[in-house]
Amino acid sequence: MPIHFFYPKNIAVIGASADPKKFGNALTKNILESNFISKKRCEIFLISHGSKEISGYKTFKSLLEIQAEIDLAIILVPAKVVNGVIGDCIKKKVRNIIIVTGGFGEIDEKGKLVEKEIAKKCNKAGIRVIGPNCVGIENVDIELNASFIQLPPKGNISMIAQSGSFACACFYEMEAQNLGISKFANIGNQIDINFIDILDFYKKDENTRTICLYIETMATGRAFYDLLREITPQKPVIIMVGGRTESGMKAASSHTGSIATNYNIMKNAVTQAGAILCEKMSDYMTALKTMSNLPVPVGEKIGVLTNSGGSSVLFSDAADKFNLTIAEFSEEFKNKITPHIIPLVKKVNPLDMIAGAAEEQYYRVTKLMLEEPGIDIVVGCSVIPPFLNIKHEEHYRGIIRAWNETGRKKPVIPLMVFGQHFITLKNYANSENATVFYTPFEAAYAVKLLVDRMKFLQKN
Amino acid sequence: MPIHFFYPKNIAVIGASADPKKFGNALTKNILESNFISKKRCEIFLISHGSKEISGYKTFKSLLEIQAEIDLAIILVPAKVVNGVIGDCIKKKVRNIIIVTGGFGEIDEKGKLVEKEIAKKCNKAGIRVIGPNCVGIENVDIELNASFIQLPPKGNISMIAQSGSFACACFYEMEAQNLGISKFANIGNQIDINFIDILDFYKKDENTRTICLYIETMATGRAFYDLLREITPQKPVIIMVGGRTESGMKAASSHTGSIATNYNIMKNAVTQAGAILCEKMSDYMTALKTMSNLPVPVGEKIGVLTNSGGSSVLFSDAADKFNLTIAEFSEEFKNKITPHIIPLVKKVNPLDMIAGAAEEQYYRVTKLMLEEPGIDIVVGCSVIPPFLNIKHEEHYRGIIRAWNETGRKKPVIPLMVFGQHFITLKNYANSENATVFYTPFEAAYAVKLLVDRMKFLQKN
Repeated sequence: MPIHFFYPKNIAVIGASADPKKFGNALTKNILESNFISKKRCEIFLISHGSKEISGYKTFKSLLEIQAEIDLAIILVPAKVVNGVIGDCIKKKVRNIIIVTGGFGEIDEKGKLVEKEIAKKCNKAGIRVIGPNCVGIENVDIELNASFIQLPPKGNISMIAQSGSFACACFYEMEAQNLGISKFANIGNQIDINFIDILDFYKKDENTRTICLYIETMATGRAFYDLLREITPQKPVIIMVGGRTESGMKAASSHTGSIATNYNIMKNAVTQAGAILCEKMSDYMTALKTMSNLPVPVGEKIGVLTNSGGSSVLFSDAADKFNLTIAEFSEEFKNKITPHIIPLVKKVNPLDMIAGAAEEQYYRVTKLMLEEPGIDIVVGCSVIPPFLNIKHEEHYRGIIRAWNETGRKKPVIPLMVFGQHFITLKNYANSENATVFYTPFEAAYAVKLLVDRMKFLQKN
Repeated sequence: MPIHFFYPKNIAVIGASADPKKFGNALTKNILESNFISKKRCEIFLISHGSKEISGYKTFKSLLEIQAEIDLAIILVPAKVVNGVIGDCIKKKVRNIIIVTGGFGEIDEKGKLVEKEIAKKCNKAGIRVIGPNCVGIENVDIELNASFIQLPPKGNISMIAQSGSFACACFYEMEAQNLGISKFANIGNQIDINFIDILDFYKKDENTRTICLYIETMATGRAFYDLLREITPQKPVIIMVGGRTESGMKAASSHTGSIATNYNIMKNAVTQAGAILCEKMSDYMTALKTMSNLPVPVGEKIGVLTNSGGSSVLFSDAADKFNLTIAEFSEEFKNKITPHIIPLVKKVNPLDMIAGAAEEQYYRVTKLMLEEPGIDIVVGCSVIPPFLNIKHEEHYRGIIRAWNETGRKKPVIPLMVFGQHFITLKNYANSENATVFYTPFEAAYAVKLLVDRMKFLQKN
């Protein structure tokens, strides 16, 4: 069961090293430094040939020297000795194995044969295997980092990535965008545990509210789509596929050693199963922000307020491309906003309150939009003004205050154009556990995803 | 002549204010604080009814009180008194006027009539006018900020934007991306000076090497395309249009008060004239980075190196979408790279040097690619590793070292996936006057723009 990988009792790191230039050191350091260990949630045993002591831990020469039962063995020894180490794991009756070492099926046919042999042996012994050729796994909930990449901030997103470096890059961006992870698995060549196994675990995992995948190959197509279909009505699933094109497939085949799936078939199947398919890393991040932070709307009518004509024009263009609906203001609504805007402002949607508009106007108008039955989604645009002593985060503050006071029931998309460079804005967003969008396209894409999700949930 | 707006002798600010909550203060502060003034390049006269003194400058009640000749008058008084102030400017024989004040043709028909009247009077008196309804202009070369937005870093890009806030947002991003501005004009309702006038000035301006435009309306279509055609063989022109769609046009009409152009017609004309048309702000920034920082290639064959399979797979997918050509390595080239890569690495393009690759490998392989006749463009991908004590900027450093040693002749696209969060990387890029790309799509789009540019220049 994949769950045991994420909640191990005792861990053995086979191929641990004191040499900072080796992956056997990178993973060992991560696992020893994660709070998981300092909180004494389990015992760690290091097996090393080259280092007698690592970070104050005495090492063992062999797994078989260890008295305690080993729940999870993480293997980092060179490829040619992996098979032998597997023999030790079987003797020691280890429950689960992660093979980090690369140089198997992704390299050549000989590597594929060795993989088959390992899989067969482990299967016979009742041992489940993740890998080979992977960075490892993480359970951020319990602060376990059993990988050689960094531990991201804690959150409700769980990820399966068929590229460790893809995950690594995403974690940098997710941290900057105030997104957090619950569980992470890089499953490498999938000789045993595959996407389906982990996905099924995420489906049942309570801390996982949003799931994201990076896929370069999907051997078990039908089972995957069936499982997706079960999950998507409960949890949004965001997918990015590498190897969609001829060039991409060629690159992928040398990366994970497997023939990529026909993308068009996958695209249709995945979309029909209710998952969100992204083709750009920036869209993938937008989808994660949107699905993790915003409620699903009950209708598709958008209200737009702005201090910048250009940004609402560009938002409208992007919205039009996605067939989104910018509402007409009712006469009643126009009367309600009148006290809060200057006479120069035209009472049309997008409502351009002009450059001098500040926190109070953003607060009042956002709140009126959130209370207006004719508006289902509010897009609050701003180009952060460098004039009139307007504070960098004050428009955003006004928007969030209105959102909080109305119980965050309708989705609010704060579009602070290229505002990622303002620390006070980002800190305020973090402190409010809210998100920010940075380009007109991104904001429109977020609305599109929400409207699609609403329609999908209405049907299911 | 527009040039006189950018190199004024004496400036009068009519409607200056000491009240930090007024635009008459924002612009006055900008102009007084810009080095242009402290370097005594010209004299500033402030005309104010409310404030006797502003930042140590004594104010005048009327333009007519000033003895000195006035080259440029900047008007910030309320719309209803603008016409009267124009009368003073004519009496005073002012050479050029910028009307910052809004509330004219963008509001209603009455406003359009007032605009016509002003244009007629000024034309008769031989005065050229920028505006109304604009943020002003900037000449960053001489550190003149005659606008109420911020002065961006100095550079070789000149911008005309039909939205002041669009420019303001772009300047934030440009600063973060190490891009600089030479001249900037926000031309508002264009009652006299229009896109064509400024563009013609940029065409001749020596410090302007790249031109970028944000357009919401283009009244003088044919003349614009003819001028574009003259400029593009010498200077790249990057254009973004707001109001491309029905919703966008509707928003634009309430923003700048003008009927947007038929986008499809414009799109064809502009592209045929050799300009680069972007539909997203992120693409616009990518185009600016690419055109300002990279040489045009002599062929279209791409060499890709990476430490991250996922990122080169995703780059290849994006490249395929743009019909780009990933080269086949020659046997000779494969032999040359062999000493610099570990045996596990497959000698195919993209060259995945695997996670442990560091500065030296990046340097060696980039240099070999730059020296290889079968490769015209090098894409150096990296996911910055959080392990093995690899420094955040070292892959980038290796790439740039190879680029520098080969005289920066071939374009090099360093793709540091989501690396914008690493300060040491950004600082190093700035110190080398080089650029960084942050997503696989962005890198592929940059290559596409370079290949398009090469083909355009070959034809012209």
